[in-house]
Amino acid sequence: MNEILEQALLYDFYGELLTKHQQEIYEQFVLEDLSLSEIAVHAGISRQGVHDLVKRCQRLLEGYEEKLHLVERFLNIRQSVQEINQVLANYEESHTDTQKTIAEIRRISKQIIEEL
Amino acid sequence: MNEILEQALLYDFYGELLTKHQQEIYEQFVLEDLSLSEIAVHAGISRQGVHDLVKRCQRLLEGYEEKLHLVERFLNIRQSVQEINQVLANYEESHTDTQKTIAEIRRISKQIIEEL
Repeated sequence: MNEILEQALLYDFYGELLTKHQQEIYEQFVLEDLSLSEIAVHAGISRQGVHDLVKRCQRLLEGYEEKLHLVERFLNIRQSVQEINQVLANYEESHTDTQKTIAEIRRISKQIIEEL
Repeated sequence: MNEILEQALLYDFYGELLTKHQQEIYEQFVLEDLSLSEIAVHAGISRQGVHDLVKRCQRLLEGYEEKLHLVERFLNIRQSVQEINQVLANYEESHTDTQKTIAEIRRISKQIIEEL
């Protein structure tokens, strides 16, 4: 996965566990894509201070993912739902094998429960 | 939801964020259903010490749920998957309205993605 997207996903899942100050700075870096220097000017702290805070946030977010695996689970469930939609699209095209289609969707449903 | 089940679910999702020591004590209380006195004897600490630690763990786990809502999301997704299975069961009984069945499953799939 592209690094920016991964950081945004990590922030989306665990951002609430950062302090308000960390959230404000980190959002400018990851979501608004401002440079360290720009953020430093806005926040009235040094460029190095912003750099250290951003790195610390990344380590914290990655630490939560290592323990809770929310982003990983999210991506797995999203993929399973896409598989269900694919099975439905295939069925609409061919209209054959209703039993097999139902069995497939049941299998994927069960998989989603296991991925929770 | 029954309180024991809720505590077990909270522990299942956020237990990794507790320290090893907290995990050991809290598991004995919630998963093995030992009394505070029994745990105190095993751990070589006072009954009051166990009580305080258990309360602290509960507050921590509830704090994570307030911020991340994992248990809530889990229960919503599980319910959506059960709805998919119900739609399939209804279809197997009647075999009418294939289009409506497909639309229903698509709707629920979309809902799962939104609940992630």
